[in-house]
Amino acid sequence: MSTYRLDITYDGTSFHGYARQRDVRTVQGVLEAALARAIGPVETTVAGRTDAGVHARQQVVSFGTETTVDVERLIRSLNSLLPNDVAAVACSEVEDGFSARFTALSRNYRYTILNRPARDPLRRSTTWHIPETLDVQAMQHAAGAFIGEHDFASLCRKAEGRSTIREVLEASWVRDGDIVEFRVTATAFCHQMVRSMVALCVEVGRGRVDTGDVVGILAARDRAAAKGAAPPQGLVLWGVGYPVE
Amino acid sequence: MSTYRLDITYDGTSFHGYARQRDVRTVQGVLEAALARAIGPVETTVAGRTDAGVHARQQVVSFGTETTVDVERLIRSLNSLLPNDVAAVACSEVEDGFSARFTALSRNYRYTILNRPARDPLRRSTTWHIPETLDVQAMQHAAGAFIGEHDFASLCRKAEGRSTIREVLEASWVRDGDIVEFRVTATAFCHQMVRSMVALCVEVGRGRVDTGDVVGILAARDRAAAKGAAPPQGLVLWGVGYPVE
Repeated sequence: MSTYRLDITYDGTSFHGYARQRDVRTVQGVLEAALARAIGPVETTVAGRTDAGVHARQQVVSFGTETTVDVERLIRSLNSLLPNDVAAVACSEVEDGFSARFTALSRNYRYTILNRPARDPLRRSTTWHIPETLDVQAMQHAAGAFIGEHDFASLCRKAEGRSTIREVLEASWVRDGDIVEFRVTATAFCHQMVRSMVALCVEVGRGRVDTGDVVGILAARDRAAAKGAAPPQGLVLWGVGYPVE
Repeated sequence: MSTYRLDITYDGTSFHGYARQRDVRTVQGVLEAALARAIGPVETTVAGRTDAGVHARQQVVSFGTETTVDVERLIRSLNSLLPNDVAAVACSEVEDGFSARFTALSRNYRYTILNRPARDPLRRSTTWHIPETLDVQAMQHAAGAFIGEHDFASLCRKAEGRSTIREVLEASWVRDGDIVEFRVTATAFCHQMVRSMVALCVEVGRGRVDTGDVVGILAARDRAAAKGAAPPQGLVLWGVGYPVE
């Protein structure tokens, strides 16, 4: 049995999210079908499950197989078998015990807002369009409250019995012309955490929530205290961090 | 009768080009239908007709109407009437005699190549994917041959009786990581001229055509001497230049 790491990238627009579900098109579904045709059935583990409409620049999966895998050939096979909204980027054999999920040290996401009066057809499936000018400095200040270890219950869709304590390593907002971008890195995220952070910061940027109130909203540990979730199409799983070999 | 200039932007993926045709979806078709609902039927003139699959960051149209137009309101109306792959960006009243086509001094296009082994699902409708590394310096050298006034018959789909002499003001290739981009400005372009330039330069970048042969291919004034046309999805009408008011 050998273990492999496979890096993929996808446009989430036409998928019902990453995780396999019966009767709907998912990234895991099309990926495992392609892997089965290329090297036989395998079970994959993923670094970060993404929701419907969320994209991945770098998603990582791992799997074990008894088949001897020529990694360059596997990439070519997968790219001919996969539909055009998913691609295989890299593949390598890794040490036994490697798990795309449990070996990962951090996940990095980016969320992009198009902040100008007119919508942009060419960026409609990769940005959230907000016509009113956002106060990015206030949003940057608000994001400072996320950094460090906190209970993010206010900013997560609760899964029964699961901890909502996470450690955020980096959270920052930058403007580049009509683009306003959120970059956030954490050891791990709970469900809808990035999009809930974005929705809250946008309310700050619109002047509807004071920067100073963000700490209190976090401390409430109550999802009702927050501002819902930003739409999925602005979100990209940008990368996953692993220990250097 | 007043004359108006309207700036629009579109994702060309799902259009059979700009120009209206019977029974197929075109940008002009959906735009004139929306204008008819907003202010009554008008005839529009366009700066640059684009082919099926070609995008526009800034396309300009002009029209005359007896209706008094509130330009801010027209933009809002159009953006609610238009499908999500076209948007109205700006509108203003202009002097009589203004024509989006004939008053234009120049057109500026960009063509984007994704130059890396793996394809990128998120950029599949806006780039041409070329896996082999291109020699961008050679392509830049080749593009120098386009600058100035030439007969571009070798690089145009010929329209009977129309001149193929054009003046190119700027033509350059730049690499930024895995993106290789062509920027070209001319007083006007003939049909498929930018995509034919790109196809020829790519053959140079692949080492299949010598840089020095490009001058001869131009001088042949024969489309058979060139290398066809690059695929449409990499091409964007980037902007149109008009005399400063």
